[in-house]
Amino acid sequence: MDRMIPLLTWVFPDTLIVIAIILVFAVASHLLLRKAISMMTNQMVRKARARAEKDAGGATSAQVRVEQRTATIGSLLRSIVAFVVWIIAILMILSALGIPLTPLLASAGVGGIALAFGAQSLVKDFLSGVFMIMEDQYGVGDLIDVGDVTGTVEEVTLRVTRLRDADGMVWYIRNGEILRVGNVSQGWSTTNVDIPLATGQDTQKAIDVLAGVAESFAADPEWTDVLLNPPSVLGVESISAGQITLRMSVRTAPNQQWAPARALREASVTALAKAGFRAPALPSYDPNI
Amino acid sequence: MDRMIPLLTWVFPDTLIVIAIILVFAVASHLLLRKAISMMTNQMVRKARARAEKDAGGATSAQVRVEQRTATIGSLLRSIVAFVVWIIAILMILSALGIPLTPLLASAGVGGIALAFGAQSLVKDFLSGVFMIMEDQYGVGDLIDVGDVTGTVEEVTLRVTRLRDADGMVWYIRNGEILRVGNVSQGWSTTNVDIPLATGQDTQKAIDVLAGVAESFAADPEWTDVLLNPPSVLGVESISAGQITLRMSVRTAPNQQWAPARALREASVTALAKAGFRAPALPSYDPNI
Amino acid sequence: MDRMIPLLTWVFPDTLIVIAIILVFAVASHLLLRKAISMMTNQMVRKARARAEKDAGGATSAQVRVEQRTATIGSLLRSIVAFVVWIIAILMILSALGIPLTPLLASAGVGGIALAFGAQSLVKDFLSGVFMIMEDQYGVGDLIDVGDVTGTVEEVTLRVTRLRDADGMVWYIRNGEILRVGNVSQGWSTTNVDIPLATGQDTQKAIDVLAGVAESFAADPEWTDVLLNPPSVLGVESISAGQITLRMSVRTAPNQQWAPARALREASVTALAKAGFRAPALPSYDPNI
Amino acid sequence: MDRMIPLLTWVFPDTLIVIAIILVFAVASHLLLRKAISMMTNQMVRKARARAEKDAGGATSAQVRVEQRTATIGSLLRSIVAFVVWIIAILMILSALGIPLTPLLASAGVGGIALAFGAQSLVKDFLSGVFMIMEDQYGVGDLIDVGDVTGTVEEVTLRVTRLRDADGMVWYIRNGEILRVGNVSQGWSTTNVDIPLATGQDTQKAIDVLAGVAESFAADPEWTDVLLNPPSVLGVESISAGQITLRMSVRTAPNQQWAPARALREASVTALAKAGFRAPALPSYDPNI
Amino acid sequence: MDRMIPLLTWVFPDTLIVIAIILVFAVASHLLLRKAISMMTNQMVRKARARAEKDAGGATSAQVRVEQRTATIGSLLRSIVAFVVWIIAILMILSALGIPLTPLLASAGVGGIALAFGAQSLVKDFLSGVFMIMEDQYGVGDLIDVGDVTGTVEEVTLRVTRLRDADGMVWYIRNGEILRVGNVSQGWSTTNVDIPLATGQDTQKAIDVLAGVAESFAADPEWTDVLLNPPSVLGVESISAGQITLRMSVRTAPNQQWAPARALREASVTALAKAGFRAPALPSYDPNI
Amino acid sequence: MDRMIPLLTWVFPDTLIVIAIILVFAVASHLLLRKAISMMTNQMVRKARARAEKDAGGATSAQVRVEQRTATIGSLLRSIVAFVVWIIAILMILSALGIPLTPLLASAGVGGIALAFGAQSLVKDFLSGVFMIMEDQYGVGDLIDVGDVTGTVEEVTLRVTRLRDADGMVWYIRNGEILRVGNVSQGWSTTNVDIPLATGQDTQKAIDVLAGVAESFAADPEWTDVLLNPPSVLGVESISAGQITLRMSVRTAPNQQWAPARALREASVTALAKAGFRAPALPSYDPNI
Amino acid sequence: MDRMIPLLTWVFPDTLIVIAIILVFAVASHLLLRKAISMMTNQMVRKARARAEKDAGGATSAQVRVEQRTATIGSLLRSIVAFVVWIIAILMILSALGIPLTPLLASAGVGGIALAFGAQSLVKDFLSGVFMIMEDQYGVGDLIDVGDVTGTVEEVTLRVTRLRDADGMVWYIRNGEILRVGNVSQGWSTTNVDIPLATGQDTQKAIDVLAGVAESFAADPEWTDVLLNPPSVLGVESISAGQITLRMSVRTAPNQQWAPARALREASVTALAKAGFRAPALPSYDPNI
Repeated sequence: MDRMIPLLTWVFPDTLIVIAIILVFAVASHLLLRKAISMMTNQMVRKARARAEKDAGGATSAQVRVEQRTATIGSLLRSIVAFVVWIIAILMILSALGIPLTPLLASAGVGGIALAFGAQSLVKDFLSGVFMIMEDQYGVGDLIDVGDVTGTVEEVTLRVTRLRDADGMVWYIRNGEILRVGNVSQGWSTTNVDIPLATGQDTQKAIDVLAGVAESFAADPEWTDVLLNPPSVLGVESISAGQITLRMSVRTAPNQQWAPARALREASVTALAKAGFRAPALPSYDPNI
Repeated sequence: MDRMIPLLTWVFPDTLIVIAIILVFAVASHLLLRKAISMMTNQMVRKARARAEKDAGGATSAQVRVEQRTATIGSLLRSIVAFVVWIIAILMILSALGIPLTPLLASAGVGGIALAFGAQSLVKDFLSGVFMIMEDQYGVGDLIDVGDVTGTVEEVTLRVTRLRDADGMVWYIRNGEILRVGNVSQGWSTTNVDIPLATGQDTQKAIDVLAGVAESFAADPEWTDVLLNPPSVLGVESISAGQITLRMSVRTAPNQQWAPARALREASVTALAKAGFRAPALPSYDPNI
Repeated sequence: MDRMIPLLTWVFPDTLIVIAIILVFAVASHLLLRKAISMMTNQMVRKARARAEKDAGGATSAQVRVEQRTATIGSLLRSIVAFVVWIIAILMILSALGIPLTPLLASAGVGGIALAFGAQSLVKDFLSGVFMIMEDQYGVGDLIDVGDVTGTVEEVTLRVTRLRDADGMVWYIRNGEILRVGNVSQGWSTTNVDIPLATGQDTQKAIDVLAGVAESFAADPEWTDVLLNPPSVLGVESISAGQITLRMSVRTAPNQQWAPARALREASVTALAKAGFRAPALPSYDPNI
Repeated sequence: MDRMIPLLTWVFPDTLIVIAIILVFAVASHLLLRKAISMMTNQMVRKARARAEKDAGGATSAQVRVEQRTATIGSLLRSIVAFVVWIIAILMILSALGIPLTPLLASAGVGGIALAFGAQSLVKDFLSGVFMIMEDQYGVGDLIDVGDVTGTVEEVTLRVTRLRDADGMVWYIRNGEILRVGNVSQGWSTTNVDIPLATGQDTQKAIDVLAGVAESFAADPEWTDVLLNPPSVLGVESISAGQITLRMSVRTAPNQQWAPARALREASVTALAKAGFRAPALPSYDPNI
Repeated sequence: MDRMIPLLTWVFPDTLIVIAIILVFAVASHLLLRKAISMMTNQMVRKARARAEKDAGGATSAQVRVEQRTATIGSLLRSIVAFVVWIIAILMILSALGIPLTPLLASAGVGGIALAFGAQSLVKDFLSGVFMIMEDQYGVGDLIDVGDVTGTVEEVTLRVTRLRDADGMVWYIRNGEILRVGNVSQGWSTTNVDIPLATGQDTQKAIDVLAGVAESFAADPEWTDVLLNPPSVLGVESISAGQITLRMSVRTAPNQQWAPARALREASVTALAKAGFRAPALPSYDPNI
Repeated sequence: MDRMIPLLTWVFPDTLIVIAIILVFAVASHLLLRKAISMMTNQMVRKARARAEKDAGGATSAQVRVEQRTATIGSLLRSIVAFVVWIIAILMILSALGIPLTPLLASAGVGGIALAFGAQSLVKDFLSGVFMIMEDQYGVGDLIDVGDVTGTVEEVTLRVTRLRDADGMVWYIRNGEILRVGNVSQGWSTTNVDIPLATGQDTQKAIDVLAGVAESFAADPEWTDVLLNPPSVLGVESISAGQITLRMSVRTAPNQQWAPARALREASVTALAKAGFRAPALPSYDPNI
Repeated sequence: MDRMIPLLTWVFPDTLIVIAIILVFAVASHLLLRKAISMMTNQMVRKARARAEKDAGGATSAQVRVEQRTATIGSLLRSIVAFVVWIIAILMILSALGIPLTPLLASAGVGGIALAFGAQSLVKDFLSGVFMIMEDQYGVGDLIDVGDVTGTVEEVTLRVTRLRDADGMVWYIRNGEILRVGNVSQGWSTTNVDIPLATGQDTQKAIDVLAGVAESFAADPEWTDVLLNPPSVLGVESISAGQITLRMSVRTAPNQQWAPARALREASVTALAKAGFRAPALPSYDPNI
């Protein structure tokens, strides 16, 4: 008798109540997770707005950038959450109906672990990308140094960052391979100018000559825009056989240091020669390297 | 009595209904996954078409390339999906019929994990290949730099990329080993020309001589096709004992920088010699290296 | 008859008692874990206060920093504990009610392990960050050396540390990649000044000249603030063909060594020249490198 | 009563039907997998034949090589498939008969995972070998560069590749350690010839002299077989103190570049000396390195 | 009837006896493990005491240090043991009472494995720390070399070692990153003094001069405290163009070698010059490097 | 009543038949595996015999070596197979008798995996050893290059290889650390002899002089045994400031190249000096390095 | 009725027989494993005795060392075996009595795997230590080279090896980090003596002079104890601009090569100078490096 009415058993309260509870929990989890995602993205936007107001007194492009990114990540997370919650709910209902799920779960388990071994660098790339974007480490247009390559960011995706280096080469760099990022565009640039002199001359006087060069350089209207400070003469950087090296330092707007450094180098050499200083007479390694 | 009619039990509603549910879900999953794959490939094609229209106002070879690739990947994904869905469905039906699947699942599990350890670099190669192709990082004919090898792409497969380097050697490089890709063909090429001079001469005048060389060089019809800008004289790059190095910079079409750089080097040396400038008298390291 | 009253069975004592026990244990675990977190944070604060009193006789900014950090970590831990305890309790109650949880647990298991492979560097970053903060290895404003980059700390988060190096570049460094930290600001700075001389002169006399320079240097009011000890003349550091190198050593306040070293270098060269010592006549490698 | 007739129970329909289903599925899986292997190998052979016809209009030794390899791999795969399918089928039948398999499966699981940790490089070697052979990256007799060793392939097995380098040493290299392969024999060889000159001479005239050398060199019957193009004079490669380096380039049949390069080097030096050009007078680093 | 008295079933002998057995085993395990810990720590203390008596005839600070550390580790281990034993006992009792533990155990499993991936370097740090402390490899005040950093130990914790290097920088080094430790303070220090001479002079006589210098140096009361042996003249270390290098060797108390080496270097140069030996006339690389 | 006769139940047909089936399968597996091992070892011996006959027309010491190794590995494999098969059979019988094996299997599982993490390099060593021996990559007495060490093999075990290098040091190298093996003794040895000349002399004449030296060298009875070919003059290897380098090449019996190369170097220098050629007058880097 | 007598059920034959079988198997496993350990250690002792008799005709200190180590390892293994066998037996008996072990086994599993990740280098250290000791790779007093450090072994434990290097520094090196060991004390020592000469002199005559030096050196009673062969003159090692380098080779007792090499260097230079040979006049790199 017992086996004669399985269909009826299925529609009996026991199984129905189980399915109802599963559905209630699935809906609840879904709503709660969406709520959590909203809170997270709202907080990110609020932070960016605060920072933008502190910096510029209003909405800036960086803020807009953060808001767009936040919206993208939020929508991505919401899709993932919906997908995962309802797949699990369906499987739980199938299980409650007595469908044998072992083959499905075992296949998913083996496949998932097998993939995980090979895909770990992929997951790493995506997770690194999510965090780099959320932390706003760099944006399109920034000049960054990612260890082996230095270039201007052309595109930031979750998996790769696209740079263009000074020689025009386009680089695709996986985000998980970026262990540290140096962002030139968020600060200023300092560079040193080393001037070699022959030994046996009046070092202090040479320093004074250079100080004069630095002063007139800072007054030159050509460089006032890029110079953040007047160049400073640091002093005797090193002494080797036949050569004393003096060092000057220039601080400029981000990534603008090369032209003033070259100009300052030329001006210094010319001024020292005019003042009668001898350059070191014998070759040696280039101290700039 | 109970054991006398197992065959009959099997064809009873209980098991039949379970099997029916399994089949329904298998068909549904299969259709949904095919739909998802179609949407993904369509979106990729649409994106490529948009980019192509923005670049060239119509269908280009790059767009055709993307469409072919998309079709290949789509068909591959569809085969995998069909295979996986129906294997699992068959196993679930066997399980519903009471076939003991533990030995099969356990073997698959141990074998899968054991393979996964050794095959992780294989999986990594394929996944990297899929993403590099989908992101269209490079195509056949591009000149790329993959870290240890630089060469022209001859073939891109899911597992390896085949390059031919400047010396004619054919390189097979596993996609998972490519941590970053530099694509010369997607940009322009810049190269520096360094001209050493003896110290104690008029640096500014030498710069003027070089500026003249750059100007007439830019006007030379031999180079107008490859030069993207007239060469620029950057200034004093470094000072060492007995030698001042001046730097010029040339920007050309992708990978066309070597010939103009050599010609510019020769023209500069000749012009400086004509203008009476002395070359540095003593050997030193090659500053180009 | 048995199957007619499942709903009643559910509200029978058996299941109710199980649920009651689960709730009692969940509440107890939650309270105990909160207590443990409080004890841990209190002890950290007490330690920091003791250290601060020993150092400065009262509350310092370092102590305030530790207290803020402790509060942040404590609140984070409390949220995690509450989340984990109640999720597990809910799952146990669902299990007691007969809801089939296998699909949920299996999905979580596979997903968790698959994520763990890719996210291990993320977890590593966070754990390293927690410990570095708890051990107070460095704070905002310290000048630190993390192996590849040396700079001033601008921000410390659980995942990354933001530095600004001497050239003004901003570095984002993942905490898990920091294998060792060198903190300049917690100590003093020592630097060596090497003075090359031609061979065949009275070395002892040269040492005496340098000792005189060191003495007058220590007496110079310009340097009294940064010098922790008078510079010391260590003696003959090395002998090579044509050159004897003498070494002096300067100890200054943290990161203040460069200016006095340069000044001392200049003073030494000038004094030796005045005393009639010859510099080595031929170039060689810079012994400072 | 129930326990009195277990033997009879075993031969009852229930168990027999289960065993029959298992056998049917085992046979079906076996046939399907053999079919799949045949299709794969046939496709590989067809591809190789097509390539061979495109290259040479008929069957070549490379095609024969691919067919032999395909046969070997096909037979290996067939053995593995037969072994795996029937082991699992036997275990499933034992399970259906009520034999307790837990100890066997658990031992296999622990042993398999324990081995997998240590054997992963072994599996990697074999998988790399299979793919390298299937992709026909190199064959016996090819001169290849595998990173640390360059030599002629003497034997290719699934686990190791045996090379003989230019010094006669025999190298056994594990296939999994070969991250990239450079195959000289599939292309041509290009090499550069650098000719240093003293500065202060007519560079353009020197280039003309070299162009004459290149022309007569290309006409020399001794080199017509190995030269793929006449040597080309690229121009001024670098300028350093006292020295200008001119570069020529030679393209030859694979791995035949050394002798013509040496001959061209000698002819160039002789011609320049005859034309009155001075070699650089002072030693420096060898610019070829 | 059966379901009417579940509460009574619970207090029936079956479950009670199981709980009793669990408690008995928990207590027994706890006691045995505490006993084992005591034995281990006692043995460590006894060993340290024996070593101390052998070295110094009584309790030393090193012994005190070992006893303190042993007490700390013993107390830590006892807390861990108590925690683990009773958590497991409680879970076993809950299981005996019929509470469904699967969700709890599955969560712990997934969480534990997920954490283990990211936390493995943390566990490694702690285990390395425990062993380094138990083996007493170094203590506060020792000068150690841990590969990348050399400095004086300021603090040893289970996770990090704090060093201060010669420049005053404070280093935090994770114990798990220390692959090998070199402890200067547990031995003596030897350093070489290399004296270059021009070729073509009487080498044996120069060696005799140096032997005389070594003798009078050993007799100098300034150095008797730090010198463990008189300096020895080893002989001709190398010959290169224009230069013969003689080597002397000095063995001193730990880390005291620099001052005597410098003094010996100066004395040797002075003595050789007095004896009429010529220094090599031309620069070369510093042979000390 | 049912519980009164458990002992009798145990000896009833059900359990007995299960045990019988287990035993039958254990014996069958054992015999089949022994058969497979015999086939494998026989095939290895047959291969070695074939190779030996092809090489030397009869049994050689290499063949004997392979046979001994094969016997050792065969006996080792047979012991492992017997051990594993019967342990599993005993566990299955215990399981059939109702002994609870979960604690045993769980302990073995956890212990096995925990060991596997630490022991993976051990397993790797043994597996590498087995394959290196089976592939006969090298034997006792061969001179091999294993990357960091080059020496004569003194002993080959499954875990380590013992070498003695040219300086007499004995090296124990773990087989798993040997990524590639270079075996000198299985081939010949080629070495280059580079002869520097001053620029501005007749290069072709110098090549002719060297060709004469090579000819008379090949005729010298002292070297006929070790020379495999007469030395060949390759031509102009490189040109640098002031120096032209000519290269000769010598091919000798394995590892016999050093003495003839030194003799040829001396003869060449002497002959060129006699023929009036000037050596380069100024020092430079040794072009052999 | 059934639930009224659980205690009685427990003491009924069923459970008792299971417990008896468990105990029988535990005792049998224990005895068999002890027997296996004894056989292994006995074989090791027998091997060491055989080797000692072959070397020295009786018991040596090396044999004693091996016997002590074998005893230690045997006793350690016996403790581990007893511990493991009886823990498992107790757990199996608890399981047979119906105690729920899942929480215990799950905790052990998760804890074991979590520890295994962090402790893998620890396990590796111990396993490496066991094998290095069993293979007797080195003993206390041997001078060994472990890659980064070379020194005299002071202590060998299962986890670390303690060395003292030539400078007196004490090194603690983890056994698992020792990839290869070079043992100087088990062989002899060979070193090369390179003598540079100016070019343009009679090389063969210089070789004869050096041969005379070698002969008289071998006859010098001061060196007869340490020299294993008379020094040999190898010939012309290299030729560079202005310099020909001759090489001699000395083979001595282990680690005794430095003093004779220095003496031979001095004697050679003196003899060549007496014979009228010129040393190279210009500096260059030290060819010994």
